[in-house]
Amino acid sequence: MNSVGKSWLLLTGLIVFYIIYLLFGALVFSTIERPVEEQLRRDMDALKQEFLNQSCVSAASLENFLVRVLTANKYGVSALRNSSVTSNWDLASSMFFANTLVTTVGYGHTTPLSDTGKVFSIVYALIGVPFTMLVLTACVQRIMYPLVIAPVCLLQRSGLEPRPATVVHFLLLLVLVVLCFFLMPAAVFSAVEVSWSFLDGLYFSFISLCTIGLGDFVPGMQPRQKYRPLYQVAVMVYLFVGLMMMYLLLRTFHKMSDLHGLTSFLQLPRCEDSDMEEEREPIVHEDSRTANNVTEKAASKPLDPGSQPSYNTINKG
Amino acid sequence: MNSVGKSWLLLTGLIVFYIIYLLFGALVFSTIERPVEEQLRRDMDALKQEFLNQSCVSAASLENFLVRVLTANKYGVSALRNSSVTSNWDLASSMFFANTLVTTVGYGHTTPLSDTGKVFSIVYALIGVPFTMLVLTACVQRIMYPLVIAPVCLLQRSGLEPRPATVVHFLLLLVLVVLCFFLMPAAVFSAVEVSWSFLDGLYFSFISLCTIGLGDFVPGMQPRQKYRPLYQVAVMVYLFVGLMMMYLLLRTFHKMSDLHGLTSFLQLPRCEDSDMEEEREPIVHEDSRTANNVTEKAASKPLDPGSQPSYNTINKG
Repeated sequence: MNSVGKSWLLLTGLIVFYIIYLLFGALVFSTIERPVEEQLRRDMDALKQEFLNQSCVSAASLENFLVRVLTANKYGVSALRNSSVTSNWDLASSMFFANTLVTTVGYGHTTPLSDTGKVFSIVYALIGVPFTMLVLTACVQRIMYPLVIAPVCLLQRSGLEPRPATVVHFLLLLVLVVLCFFLMPAAVFSAVEVSWSFLDGLYFSFISLCTIGLGDFVPGMQPRQKYRPLYQVAVMVYLFVGLMMMYLLLRTFHKMSDLHGLTSFLQLPRCEDSDMEEEREPIVHEDSRTANNVTEKAASKPLDPGSQPSYNTINKG
Repeated sequence: MNSVGKSWLLLTGLIVFYIIYLLFGALVFSTIERPVEEQLRRDMDALKQEFLNQSCVSAASLENFLVRVLTANKYGVSALRNSSVTSNWDLASSMFFANTLVTTVGYGHTTPLSDTGKVFSIVYALIGVPFTMLVLTACVQRIMYPLVIAPVCLLQRSGLEPRPATVVHFLLLLVLVVLCFFLMPAAVFSAVEVSWSFLDGLYFSFISLCTIGLGDFVPGMQPRQKYRPLYQVAVMVYLFVGLMMMYLLLRTFHKMSDLHGLTSFLQLPRCEDSDMEEEREPIVHEDSRTANNVTEKAASKPLDPGSQPSYNTINKG
């Protein structure tokens, strides 16, 4: 198979495995957390009934009642009648939770109740977070040509100087991302979610795609929402593609900074060179003494990053 | 000034500016959110009093009461008597919130109540998130030599082959990070926070340093905690240094993957070369036709990342 075919096969494999990993996480979280949640929900109902049955409400009994209501709420179990119809740990919701873990968004609108759930969250994220970064990197790598390289070259062909071309391209890409991944989704969210304003939708999109994930606005949390599982899957796809575009924007900005000398001014690693492995002079030396030489050289001025040796001065053996 | 001095001056400048940016954020958040929070707190007290004064509690009035209690709780205003002594928007807490925004951890234990606060959060994170990444990258860049390059060279000098040396070094670094940034902090948190077990502490450290930040466990949220502002600042420092170490670990892993051929197997950009700018053959061509040539070349097989042109084939003009 040629390298183009192999490249796409690899990417498809990664994405399929990513979906399987999310489904696996959803199944495990659902299995672990659903019984605990149901128990807490029953306790909450009993508590409410008991509270209503008492003849007179004292400040102390109210305080005691509220402590338990707020604790349950922390774990995503609401004491309200409306919200108890759906579970936070059905398959779609568990998958949504698994997705917020591996993308590091972490809304925290629902969190594991049991110690087993906490341990599984750690193990699941330990594998899932780097894997998601890998899948995102692989995707961004494949859309670099159509969305960055080709447009920049096109701008240059149309007569722009190279540096202005990269700036114009970055600004165009920025407008495209803001429009398609912030403003349009904000309009959709404010239409679908009854209590959200346009600003709330924009705030949600921004807080999510920066992976901050405060969790004060989470889609699909309203009672009696139609097609809730489908909606949650759509939000997951939006988050994934959105994160991909944010990463693309970041890489493009990094590359532009390289070209405009900002990276070298700040003495930071440059981005641009990582794509050009094949076409470069080899830096890896066959001489095994190189590592020692480099150490001595670096030790003389260890704080200048430009002169620091890197892993690639090490003989690959 | 020599380049070592300039490099450190730059880093110090970045860190000082980072602290100033956090303080600025804290001041603005505190100014915007504190009055709104105080109003909500007063409303909550009045609501509780009114609820207690009624002769008989009906299911409807309880439901109505709980809706408002849970909404206020979402914004970090608890209806409990104990927790109303401290504000979520005093200077230290606001700085802690600002820090969770710019590091993308985003616990969401407290969130902006007003629209002004939401808009400011967006603008603040828009500048703060890339800036924090810049500061973290600059710091990691400076600790690469003592924590990665030097130890690997030392391992090689002591007779290890280059590839095993990088593996041994990575494992040692991993143990160091797990010990100093997960196990030890977990022990400290479980000692300081009354209701946290060791597992809770570990879970908090992990969820925070992966920037997931679910927010089910947030330090310094218990009522009547001594030296709360100081404790919050300590947690902020822990988060910053911890994130730096996580980033270092990630870069080291990326470099190790390069060396072991994993990166090229997955056709991803390599990491290792970004440190070696100065010592390499220039790839930037003086010929302005290069960009066009590269486009044509790339268009013939656009999907093979290895052969894709990058920004550095563009004439720097």
